[in-house]
Amino acid sequence: MAVVGDGQLARMMAEAAGPLGVRLRLLAGDPDSSAAQVIPDVQLGQHTDEAAVRAIVKDAAVLTFDHEHVPNEILLRLQSEGVPVGPPPQALVHAQDKLVMRERLSELIGDRHALADLPVWARVRTPAEVTSFGDATGWPVIVKTPRGGYDGKGVVVAGSAGDVPSEWFEKFPDGLLAEEKVDFRRELAVLVARSPSGQASAWPVVETIQVDSICDEVIAPAPGLPAELAGAATELALRIAGELGVTGVLAVEGFETADGRFLVNELAMRPHNSGHWTIEGSVTSQFEQHLRAVLDLPLGEVGAREKWTVMVNVLGGKYPDLYRSYLHVMARDPKAKVHLYGKGVRPGRKLGHVTCYGDDLDDVRARARHAADFIRGVIEE
Amino acid sequence: MAVVGDGQLARMMAEAAGPLGVRLRLLAGDPDSSAAQVIPDVQLGQHTDEAAVRAIVKDAAVLTFDHEHVPNEILLRLQSEGVPVGPPPQALVHAQDKLVMRERLSELIGDRHALADLPVWARVRTPAEVTSFGDATGWPVIVKTPRGGYDGKGVVVAGSAGDVPSEWFEKFPDGLLAEEKVDFRRELAVLVARSPSGQASAWPVVETIQVDSICDEVIAPAPGLPAELAGAATELALRIAGELGVTGVLAVEGFETADGRFLVNELAMRPHNSGHWTIEGSVTSQFEQHLRAVLDLPLGEVGAREKWTVMVNVLGGKYPDLYRSYLHVMARDPKAKVHLYGKGVRPGRKLGHVTCYGDDLDDVRARARHAADFIRGVIEE
Repeated sequence: MAVVGDGQLARMMAEAAGPLGVRLRLLAGDPDSSAAQVIPDVQLGQHTDEAAVRAIVKDAAVLTFDHEHVPNEILLRLQSEGVPVGPPPQALVHAQDKLVMRERLSELIGDRHALADLPVWARVRTPAEVTSFGDATGWPVIVKTPRGGYDGKGVVVAGSAGDVPSEWFEKFPDGLLAEEKVDFRRELAVLVARSPSGQASAWPVVETIQVDSICDEVIAPAPGLPAELAGAATELALRIAGELGVTGVLAVEGFETADGRFLVNELAMRPHNSGHWTIEGSVTSQFEQHLRAVLDLPLGEVGAREKWTVMVNVLGGKYPDLYRSYLHVMARDPKAKVHLYGKGVRPGRKLGHVTCYGDDLDDVRARARHAADFIRGVIEE
Repeated sequence: MAVVGDGQLARMMAEAAGPLGVRLRLLAGDPDSSAAQVIPDVQLGQHTDEAAVRAIVKDAAVLTFDHEHVPNEILLRLQSEGVPVGPPPQALVHAQDKLVMRERLSELIGDRHALADLPVWARVRTPAEVTSFGDATGWPVIVKTPRGGYDGKGVVVAGSAGDVPSEWFEKFPDGLLAEEKVDFRRELAVLVARSPSGQASAWPVVETIQVDSICDEVIAPAPGLPAELAGAATELALRIAGELGVTGVLAVEGFETADGRFLVNELAMRPHNSGHWTIEGSVTSQFEQHLRAVLDLPLGEVGAREKWTVMVNVLGGKYPDLYRSYLHVMARDPKAKVHLYGKGVRPGRKLGHVTCYGDDLDDVRARARHAADFIRGVIEE
């Protein structure tokens, strides 16, 4: 199968492809990138270059991605020529454009005030429309660019219309997304997978903890989550996957509100940081399931193997080289599972993650946190 | 690091190397071999060709193997030039030559009639010596070539000296190995790992079930094994690793005798078929631990994650292509973990394995057996 994107998600797909007997052909921007280090069949090129994408799909059972940035028109053309694309571009657009996603989900959810819903939102084309929205829903409001935002980029918390960068209105003449600032207890993520023949599976709902808008820690399952809310969030994620025709893994990120509802924030159609815990923590990892799903192989069981599994990201910190701190962590905690992505260190860059599991949540969290913080150099003891 | 050997063991090492952030350079006989399919940095050549082995060790942190067939003199030369070799040739010779191994272990065990011991054995150079041995220990006896045997090749059960192929005496002028035919309940394997700095770990002792002298099924841990016997076998395996200076994984295969002792049969110094269950069944897999050990990284925890883990090999059978039966197994048992090695089907060839785990041993065995038999075509329902 063909994979576009050379980051850690494609790397971890390759780690799952081996046991499945699936061979990957990668479109990589860099011959020494995270995924290119572990996949023999690599073509170099840009994901925005149609010829480069075409070069990897010949005879491939399916084309998939480790990011959502391949232009939809390229995928539509390939699809019309008979190349299976998973997820298909008709679904993928909902992970590429936040306004398209909000419109489609509003339609799909229908009933306002459902237990699993969207935040109150509007399309805003001018500062005056931001003001109207804020006056109606209460200030501050969140304003986002419909495309191109990630890890906190393309998002402002606006106390007034003047806080929204004026160039955004010019760059996105079809409008920006304005949204109520949700009063939330915590963030949750629902990870599901769906195959072209319609089989679907859902991992337990997890709690995600963001620091500076970047995923920092994931706790599986989300502690103390009411079963009714977990059920409603899971049911909504499975409906989204089905109605949008998603194939592969779909991550639905959202908020658990102070009044006990689940409000959708973002969609991602690929393995997702909130699912790295599944490598050790579930019978079937998100990477294995993504491959099984896009290839239309029968899906694997997705129950949790342990009472608690916690994943903490390792970001680039003060050490130019992680090797010594990595040794220390291995020696200190022989049960910690450290995953490195083979990437050069830059401050704030996702370089790896640590997963710990066990019966005592406080202990598991402390171990995973310590290991990740030690590797990056936040702590020295 | 540099790896000689392109089979499934090197392939599964590569699956473990990714998360560790370790990059492999492979010496492969075939560019489409099992391991070469998943490792980008491949040199083609034969493991008996010193120049080919030299071509992969430049700048490598260590040289390791997925088999024991690299000539010891090549390894000794590389070692004398400062190339770290794991396991070192001084240890490896005990996995290459059964007489060298028996002599060394006899010395090491000392006390005859220990709970963990060797079968009664002798070096035999002529048919007359076979007759003397058989008359002394009782017929039939087992006669083996000291080198070059595997999966039942190079072994005869001799009711008299005439059953031993006469060319063996010519081919091995230093003698053959004659051994008592052990009255055993079942076969066991003890898997340990040791690093150059002397850290060592031991997985739970497993039961191995051979069919036609080929490993068919592994049950972890060995059901009903007395703790004292498990302890003695494990202690012996750790002593062997330490005294012989093994680095990496050491598999000690042996018999549980009718009178409740453990008798060593074979040594292997690399990840071993009896340890494939550790991929899902232990906190640290044998492949991860082998890499950690030969690189002198701190070792991982090796406890069992599940009450029972069972692995069944998938051998080449009647289907020229496994794909349809593979789909069926995935659909029927979403908890079964199927590992394929990317090898073409030949009858009797090891093509993959299936691992199942859970609390009910009969159920786990039945599921793993069904999946493996169905994939190879032994059963159709």
